[in-house]
Amino acid sequence: MTLELYHAEPVANSMKTLLCLKEKDLKFRSHYVDLLRFEQHRPEFVKLNPNGQVPVLVHNGAVITESTVINEYLYDAFPEVALRPQNFAERAQMRVWSKFVDEYFCPALSMWGWHLMVRKVAQSLSKNELEKVLERIPLKEQRDKWATIAGESFSEAQLEDSKRKLKVSIDRMEKILAKSKWLAGSQYSLADVNSYPMVAGVPRMFPEIMNPKTAPLACAWLDTMNARPAVRAALSMPNRVPEVLRTFGG
Amino acid sequence: MTLELYHAEPVANSMKTLLCLKEKDLKFRSHYVDLLRFEQHRPEFVKLNPNGQVPVLVHNGAVITESTVINEYLYDAFPEVALRPQNFAERAQMRVWSKFVDEYFCPALSMWGWHLMVRKVAQSLSKNELEKVLERIPLKEQRDKWATIAGESFSEAQLEDSKRKLKVSIDRMEKILAKSKWLAGSQYSLADVNSYPMVAGVPRMFPEIMNPKTAPLACAWLDTMNARPAVRAALSMPNRVPEVLRTFGG
Repeated sequence: MTLELYHAEPVANSMKTLLCLKEKDLKFRSHYVDLLRFEQHRPEFVKLNPNGQVPVLVHNGAVITESTVINEYLYDAFPEVALRPQNFAERAQMRVWSKFVDEYFCPALSMWGWHLMVRKVAQSLSKNELEKVLERIPLKEQRDKWATIAGESFSEAQLEDSKRKLKVSIDRMEKILAKSKWLAGSQYSLADVNSYPMVAGVPRMFPEIMNPKTAPLACAWLDTMNARPAVRAALSMPNRVPEVLRTFGG
Repeated sequence: MTLELYHAEPVANSMKTLLCLKEKDLKFRSHYVDLLRFEQHRPEFVKLNPNGQVPVLVHNGAVITESTVINEYLYDAFPEVALRPQNFAERAQMRVWSKFVDEYFCPALSMWGWHLMVRKVAQSLSKNELEKVLERIPLKEQRDKWATIAGESFSEAQLEDSKRKLKVSIDRMEKILAKSKWLAGSQYSLADVNSYPMVAGVPRMFPEIMNPKTAPLACAWLDTMNARPAVRAALSMPNRVPEVLRTFGG
């Protein structure tokens, strides 16, 4: 059996998969992809994932992309540690929540990550260097995002709307945790694993949105998560991003 | 066992779930939700799904939302007809593709559906009626979309970008079908079920994007799908949308 993961530092979508691997105590060969050097756009990496994005799992030759899908794959292929509820309705809740994280919560947080961090990287490049970077990005949507942050960045209205979405996300979480211990019911599941990197970023970036007064249950959930050995193990993975560029996670 | 589905006419996301139920030959109680009468925003429906959206599955009291998740639930709860590949890598491919349909292909098609069809509905309302409709929509994003189409609609640039995304989607499909019979490999799966309502809409709305010359494999796939008894059975479900308002599917 060979299990390999191409990933960046233990934040955002890379962290989702690193955490899942650690929870399942699976040995894997780690390939660090340096996003600050744009290694994810290099031809040899794009051959692996035509979208030019991390993480990517390779298992006995099969290439699996998309962190949420990778984590479901890890459950299918290594069912020993149950991170998927046995109750089918709770499993559906796990998927509805993970979908919400992918489509709503994560993009809102990501916009701020790009605005505060990736923007510094983009602005450190000469016009010529930036053009070379843009040229190699496979997805138009990603190219557009780079062009946006290298220029005027997102509009005030867009940033405010993303902040509003972060509040909606934490409020939803709070409501779920008022009814159940974990995000998909009574059992720790991929809903919790998939949320951790995003939730961890909120109190650091917006303490007014998530603090023990505004979101006591979400804060308690985060404390419990932070104490898990798998979370500590995943966070101890290499992080070559300079401190000054870190805005959330890690 | 009681299985109930709240759904609109057999198009878009309602069709995804109707088709899955028909493929599995499951008996269910059908609750038609009339979107033209905004029944999805009525308090009794919002109690069922706080997002105010169809379809919703109710199984022995458990409420399942989100068409993609409902279809995975149906597989979990009724595994007899295998719509999920047994090969885990193909199952991951099924999920990557379904995610792409949800996050990229469907929103692009949906924008045109709103622009061409829902816009007519919005414009048939008085200012007063529209305000009443907006008031009851639970999701801000949906409220904004109604306000947009009741006014100037989407911009030319937004509509053109969505059209571009439809071409990207059909091109991707063509590439997959050059390598395998179905969208997630050698076996008919949820990847095909989840794509059908979207793909069926493209040649009707944009024959220049999808025709036997530009996309021969996608066209052949659609013919094969159209001939499936389950597709015919799902399409024969009630459709109360007046012909003049139909733009895709059904």
